[in-house]
Amino acid sequence: MPLHPKLFYIRSGHNYLSDLMPESFNVTAYDVNGEVDYSKLIERFGIKPIDKVMEERIKKDAGDLHYLIRRGIFFAHRDLPWLLGEYEKGNKFYVYTGIAPSGGMTIAHLLPFIMAQWLQKRFDVEVLIQIPDEEKFLAKKDPNLTLEKIHELAYADALNIMALGFDQKKTRIFFDTDYASRTYKQAVRVSKYITYSIVKDAFGFSNETNIGMLFYTSMQAVPAFIKSVEAGKNVPCLIPLGVDQDVHFRVARNAIEKLGYYKPAIMHNKFVPGLKGGAKMSSSDPGNSIYLDDSEDEVNKKVNRAITGQQATAELQKKLGGDPEKCSVCQYYRFLFEPDDAKLEDIFNAERKGTLLAGEHKADLARRINKFLADHRKRKEALRDKLGSFILQA
Amino acid sequence: MPLHPKLFYIRSGHNYLSDLMPESFNVTAYDVNGEVDYSKLIERFGIKPIDKVMEERIKKDAGDLHYLIRRGIFFAHRDLPWLLGEYEKGNKFYVYTGIAPSGGMTIAHLLPFIMAQWLQKRFDVEVLIQIPDEEKFLAKKDPNLTLEKIHELAYADALNIMALGFDQKKTRIFFDTDYASRTYKQAVRVSKYITYSIVKDAFGFSNETNIGMLFYTSMQAVPAFIKSVEAGKNVPCLIPLGVDQDVHFRVARNAIEKLGYYKPAIMHNKFVPGLKGGAKMSSSDPGNSIYLDDSEDEVNKKVNRAITGQQATAELQKKLGGDPEKCSVCQYYRFLFEPDDAKLEDIFNAERKGTLLAGEHKADLARRINKFLADHRKRKEALRDKLGSFILQA
Repeated sequence: MPLHPKLFYIRSGHNYLSDLMPESFNVTAYDVNGEVDYSKLIERFGIKPIDKVMEERIKKDAGDLHYLIRRGIFFAHRDLPWLLGEYEKGNKFYVYTGIAPSGGMTIAHLLPFIMAQWLQKRFDVEVLIQIPDEEKFLAKKDPNLTLEKIHELAYADALNIMALGFDQKKTRIFFDTDYASRTYKQAVRVSKYITYSIVKDAFGFSNETNIGMLFYTSMQAVPAFIKSVEAGKNVPCLIPLGVDQDVHFRVARNAIEKLGYYKPAIMHNKFVPGLKGGAKMSSSDPGNSIYLDDSEDEVNKKVNRAITGQQATAELQKKLGGDPEKCSVCQYYRFLFEPDDAKLEDIFNAERKGTLLAGEHKADLARRINKFLADHRKRKEALRDKLGSFILQA
Repeated sequence: MPLHPKLFYIRSGHNYLSDLMPESFNVTAYDVNGEVDYSKLIERFGIKPIDKVMEERIKKDAGDLHYLIRRGIFFAHRDLPWLLGEYEKGNKFYVYTGIAPSGGMTIAHLLPFIMAQWLQKRFDVEVLIQIPDEEKFLAKKDPNLTLEKIHELAYADALNIMALGFDQKKTRIFFDTDYASRTYKQAVRVSKYITYSIVKDAFGFSNETNIGMLFYTSMQAVPAFIKSVEAGKNVPCLIPLGVDQDVHFRVARNAIEKLGYYKPAIMHNKFVPGLKGGAKMSSSDPGNSIYLDDSEDEVNKKVNRAITGQQATAELQKKLGGDPEKCSVCQYYRFLFEPDDAKLEDIFNAERKGTLLAGEHKADLARRINKFLADHRKRKEALRDKLGSFILQA
């Protein structure tokens, strides 16, 4: 006898009523829109929240807890208890993450790399970074976004990544089109387990999607097990990523398991909000994003146009106070520019109480961002000539 | 006003009646069955017959006409007049062909390579040979056909190919999975112009086809223009291939043109019939095929079981004679083992007149095949240690 629909929803972990209501947000690998409800996303993607118990275990193993975890920005995971269990038994993992170049890196792109670098330092592990220089070429119609143009961007991204302070001995980067002699074969093995039906449903592809896009997810799967292939034995892998990228591994983890390798563990981060609002700071809206190569002047202008949670006038703000949750300036401190929780709380409180006015609030953030970017530029210059040594050749 | 259906068919070049009749044969890249009507295939694929005018032009430019062309075995083409026009203007082409390893090479696989080697000799051109070691892995369900197994077969195929007498300075071979750092990027460029709809219709794929198969045709397209990429200017390309492979280029030629390269010219060969009949000697039916590594004994046994066009008894054959068109032994002479037209005509006449009985007929062919295979083995042994120098590394 079939279950009553309501019972089915309860038993399968779905929320009956909200599932019947139209979706108010959408998160796919190629599109994020609406106000993202992250608890709902956890349910929808079948991932697990990083709860207090999980946080304690990470803290115990790492000796510390990164502010991105403490603040719930890395909010969900797959198989993290298993991965840490392996680590506790002495079976070290490696970290894999990446970025698909399309138009310069924004500070929002940094989250998975900041986490990767912290994991490397705390667990003393190798980091493998994939730069899929074909993905956006295949996904976008822009005729100016040639593979040659993307290849330039890929080098710029690689330098930006290394400048975050990765261990130069334990970090390697590769570009898909240059390294395919080592990866295409493994992608082929993965692809044999993935049908058109699967990618159609998972990515929202249609009959008019090009066959490069249909295949691409196989390439993104490879770094999650390539160290096992190379080592001739299973090596656990941990992937910090933006939650929109989870879909690639929802699809690939089954295939990877069928090939006889460990399924990768994953840590998911929330999206850095846009300066002017919106679920995700997108690199396709320059005014809404801070790029790593923005000038001081550009940063000042962009931050000055940011939305805050403040009242319409300074008078009203002083009287009523503002809402840090709705203030992109506060959120930038939370996500990226104030690692100290006590100091962050001071900023949030000042916003709430109306003692911190918009002009000063924005000027402070712009100074912090410009300080970070200036330091970052210096680190980049120091690394520029060495970059080639971190890039894997097939 | 819509045309009367019959008029439509006449005007569009279709044969009205036969188009309404059920298809009696099928030729796709992954399946050939039924009795192939090659004139119909020319119409269906939109290719051109190699007629007397075309033969004369080839003969003029090549200084000779290969028996495979004279006998209508290479029976059709795409853009051959254009290619020869370029050659006549001093713009040399290169030859590209290949083979997807799955279970050892048969003598039927040799036709495009025999043609490639002849073209190389007559036109003094480079030959590029692709060995797509992923294709059959993706296409077949056989769990024993691993990529590692195919890689072994690929080396064996490469040796068999070079033993046909290619110019060692002007011939290079590559395996897809090893050479992907040079080809994947170009395949990505092609793939952007090819949708799921296109490959679904062209190859008969379904929603359950794996995404590696969907993408694969892009990899087969690359060698048709890679010399242009490398040279930084357009270089004409000629592809001799079995007519079942034409579909890859029906799909890719548009994409290649959109990328700004010359569309490759193509020469199509008919299928070598099976020893026991059937449209195509398939490497998946060992008893119906002669493998390049068959022993003398195996050849004798297989040829002995071949169908002939002869009468049921020797008495009847002597009285009534046989039909060389229906005799696989005669056809093997025609396709592969008797390049001299006058001698072939003698064999056919003897079959027609009933003066050549089945036993002797078969024994003669078996001797010829065994002589060829013995010489081939010797040429292979002489080349074995040098093979690596013909294989391109990424």
